[in-house]
Order: sequence, then C-alpha cells, then structure tokens
Amino acid sequence: MLELIGEVPYDVEVHDILQIDSSNMQPEEWEIIAQEIYHNRLNYDGIVLSHGTDTMAYTASMLSFMLQDIEIPVVLTGSQVPINVVLSDAPDNLRLAFVAADLCQPGIYLAFDGKVMRGCRTVKVRTTNFDAFESVNLQPVAQVTSDGLVFNDQAQLKLAPNLNCKLNTKVDHHVSLVKLFPGFDPNLLFAMADNGCRGIVIEAYGLGGMNFIRRNIVAVIGELIKRGIPVIATSQCLYERSDLTKYEVGREALLQGAISAHDMTSESAITKLMWGLGQGMDLDEIAKFFETNVVGEVTLSVN
Amino acid sequence: MLELIGEVPYDVEVHDILQIDSSNMQPEEWEIIAQEIYHNRLNYDGIVLSHGTDTMAYTASMLSFMLQDIEIPVVLTGSQVPINVVLSDAPDNLRLAFVAADLCQPGIYLAFDGKVMRGCRTVKVRTTNFDAFESVNLQPVAQVTSDGLVFNDQAQLKLAPNLNCKLNTKVDHHVSLVKLFPGFDPNLLFAMADNGCRGIVIEAYGLGGMNFIRRNIVAVIGELIKRGIPVIATSQCLYERSDLTKYEVGREALLQGAISAHDMTSESAITKLMWGLGQGMDLDEIAKFFETNVVGEVTLSVN
Repeated sequence: MLELIGEVPYDVEVHDILQIDSSNMQPEEWEIIAQEIYHNRLNYDGIVLSHGTDTMAYTASMLSFMLQDIEIPVVLTGSQVPINVVLSDAPDNLRLAFVAADLCQPGIYLAFDGKVMRGCRTVKVRTTNFDAFESVNLQPVAQVTSDGLVFNDQAQLKLAPNLNCKLNTKVDHHVSLVKLFPGFDPNLLFAMADNGCRGIVIEAYGLGGMNFIRRNIVAVIGELIKRGIPVIATSQCLYERSDLTKYEVGREALLQGAISAHDMTSESAITKLMWGLGQGMDLDEIAKFFETNVVGEVTLSVN
Repeated sequence: MLELIGEVPYDVEVHDILQIDSSNMQPEEWEIIAQEIYHNRLNYDGIVLSHGTDTMAYTASMLSFMLQDIEIPVVLTGSQVPINVVLSDAPDNLRLAFVAADLCQPGIYLAFDGKVMRGCRTVKVRTTNFDAFESVNLQPVAQVTSDGLVFNDQAQLKLAPNLNCKLNTKVDHHVSLVKLFPGFDPNLLFAMADNGCRGIVIEAYGLGGMNFIRRNIVAVIGELIKRGIPVIATSQCLYERSDLTKYEVGREALLQGAISAHDMTSESAITKLMWGLGQGMDLDEIAKFFETNVVGEVTLSVN
C-alpha cells in the first residue's frame, strides 16, 4: 500500500486490525479500533486510520468520545475509489493524512480531498465525487494549498496542554435515529421504546420543529421523557444550527423535555447519545451532557 | 401582503386556504391544497403557493404526484424571515415565484433565493440563511440574473404538450423513514411493521450499503419483503445517486428485494411511497413504480 502513495518523509509502521466493508462497521469494531489506538498511542507521534468512507464520519465521532484527551493526532482517511485503481483518490488522501498526523494538535481528525476536518463535525455528503466529506457548522481545521497544509484554526497553532487519554469504550447501542416527515405516526416511537430503545434522536424540521396537531409527536416525546427515555431533537437540514426556542413547534417540544442537539451533526448526536447511555447516564445527566461541548462537537451560545 | 412586495405586473387574486406552521403540515393539508389547486387551475395562468419552509420540500414532492399533468405552472415559495420584518427574504421570493408562474412550463416548482427548482428535487438544507433550498441531483430549472429569469433547462423552452390534470390525493401515511447508523437494531423494523407500517424508506450508507453481519438488516429486509412490505433504499448522503449494484453491502440488499431510490431525495422517496401505497399498489407494483420516472423526480440509467 505504502509503495503506491510514493515517498513520505515519515517512519511508518502498519498495523492491520480489521478487513471489513465500512457499511458493516458497528460498535464492536469501534471498540477494537479505540483499544488499538489507545494501547499504541505513546509509541507514535501520530496515527493514521484508513477506513471505508460509508461510516467513517460515525467512527470519527465515536472515537472522539471514546478517546478523550488523546495525546497525539489521530487522522482518519479513506477514498472514494480503491487504491489499486489508477485514478484513485487514495494516494492523495493518505499523504494528506500523514501530514495532518505530523502537524495537527492532538485530537481526532478526518482528512479528505485536501481538507483536514475535526472528526466529530464531518458528514459524508456525496456518494461518488472525491469531495465526499464536509465539515458541518465548523470550518475545516486546515486545507492543502501550494504552501502546504494551511491551518484556519488558530487554536491549532497553540501548544497542546498536558493531556492524559481516558479510554472509555462502553456504549449503549439501543438507540434510534428517526427522520420526521409529514404523516409520521408518533406511536412508532412508543413501538421503538417498547422494543428496547433507550434513547431517540429525532431529525426534526428546520430549526427543530415537530408537529403537535392531529399526530402529536410532542406529546409522545413528553411520555417518553416521563419513562426516562431521552429524546434529542436535531435538524434534518444538513447545515446550520437547530434552535427550538424560536417557534412554537420547537418550544412545545422543549417544554416536554426534548433535548436540543444545537448545531451538532446527526452522526455526532447519535454517537454522543450511545456513549452517554453507555456511561450509565440517566435522563438528567444526558440532558446536561448535551449542554456540554465535550470534544468540539457542538457550538453552544454564550448566554 | 401584496403591497409589501411592491409592484408586480400581474393580475393577482388571493385565496386564503390554510394558516398553519409548516411543521404541523400533514397529508390532510396536502389534500386540501391539491384540491384547491385542481379546482382553480383553469381560472389562472399560474398559481403561487406560499408555504412555510420547514416542510415545503415534502409538499412540493407530494403535489407533484397528486397533480400529475397539471396544465399550468404551480410555484411554491416561502421565506426564512417573516414578510413584516424589514430584512425579510419574502418580497424577493414572492416576486420570483410570480415570474416563475408566468414563464415556466406547466408543473410543480419551488422558487427560493433566486433559483427556480423542480419541486420534487428540492431539499431544505439550511436552517437560517436565505439560500435554504437546493435542487438535488438536477440543476435548477432557472435562476435570476440581471437578464431576468434565465432557464438552464432547454425543455422549459419547448411548447407544453396537451395536458389533462389527474387529481389523485389518496395516500397511505403508514410508512416510516429510517436513517441507518452503526449499531441500529434491525428488529426495530419488525416493531414498525407490527405497529402498522406498510412501507419503509431506509437512508442507507453511501451508495446504499447496509450491514449484514451481526445485526443483519439485509435479512430483516428480506423478511419484510416476504410480508409484502416494500423497503426502499436511499442514501443518507445528500448529494449524488445511490447504486446498490456496486458493493456487496448493497447487492445483498437488492437480492433480498430492496428497492433502489436511485438519485431521488428522501422527501421525494417517502412521498412517492405514500402515494403509491395510497393507490393500492402491491409490492411488485411499488417496485415497478420506483423504476419509473413519473414527474421528473428520478434519473434512471438508460441501460
């Protein structure tokens, strides 16, 4: 593999840990990867993790929670076309990932198509073109120019604080991710809860609106909250924040106890929920957890 | 309202049919709107429908199916900021919608922020900025320049064929829209079916991949198909097509009978499913229906 990407000015060791289509990646694989990174992190200046693109944004988000305060940069990358194809994007992406692992501050990143992004802000938005990933609601940390890797984030230029990685791979995968549409039967949320669902992320409309006439999703959320099941409201709009305070259709949900995901991606919201529940957090603790910026996954207003 | 948008060179009549936050819009409202448009269509050269932005893409998609072969242009528009606010985008959007209703060929459109888009291709992608809507996998029909409304779609310049609108508002809203994430329990799909769900759209990974190891979503889809419940596979990537034939994680789902949504939006896929089921289509008929470009909602490959 390394021969194909040409010369890199680094001393590289390769660990083969999984051979799996990323559509088949699940929490069990996250745990294997997190363990492997944790146990090897002090032997290297940085780690590059090659990964299929389909679930890479989920893995990048979850590793951010599982490996908080990691002492080195960990950079996920992949390609839209396999590396053995002549016009593959893999060589460029791999070289970028190595440079990012050299130059970035400690943390979890995703490097793709000339951009280095904070891992917990990434979303795969394109199925075929090379610019497959976007950094949502946060500009990329750095991008490639003819001057090399240019950092946008001034924080990246500061000296890293003393870090001490806490490995915590416990997650509760009994959660659900529901995208609202007009006509959705809110009783299906009860059906999920009755079948073991311990937390739900709802991709609501616009700033986080949900219907409360006729099919009353807001009332069902209130019932779920009473049962101790956290319901996180995010927006099905890819870009920009949710703000449940702005319209009645959001305020009603807030009154019932819905928890706002603010400007997080759905990938980050669902992994944060799984990780929080895995730590044994109850409803109130999950609510507080979502009002906390843990690893740069959310922008909280200052007031 | 009309005073606020300034002079328009059109003879405009206003019908007030609904006063509702669009997050509360549901199939019952779609029927009211479709009926109103149908019964008034021959009295006007074009119709502008003002609508809240949150569910406007769903309404635009559903009206495309409910009002096939409509004889006039019907243009949905709205605004990110209420019309009585001085910096509102409503006046511009309304003026654009009137021009589109004057100049476009018959059909259902959405006009927003200088772009006229085919209704069934639109997605709301931003919660706060004025460029809230994108035309996904099809360029906008036209956009505003200093030359006025410039059409990209040459088909728009041809003479419309003899049309004869078929009003058909029957829909089955007992469907579900599931966004896959690593760890998702496929038994929740059974829970939905057991609670009245007659069709499911799954936002799968990338080109349409789904996991089949450990938690075997593909096998559950096979079971649902045996029960006569159509499962439509689309991509959670906003842009570009799904193609289940490319990787094993998609091919396995196809083998089990999953139906590809190709490059349709989720908004269009879920409304097409609701409409198809409402017509009494069975599993095979739904599969054929999704291999048919009904109103411009899908790009089918030529082979």
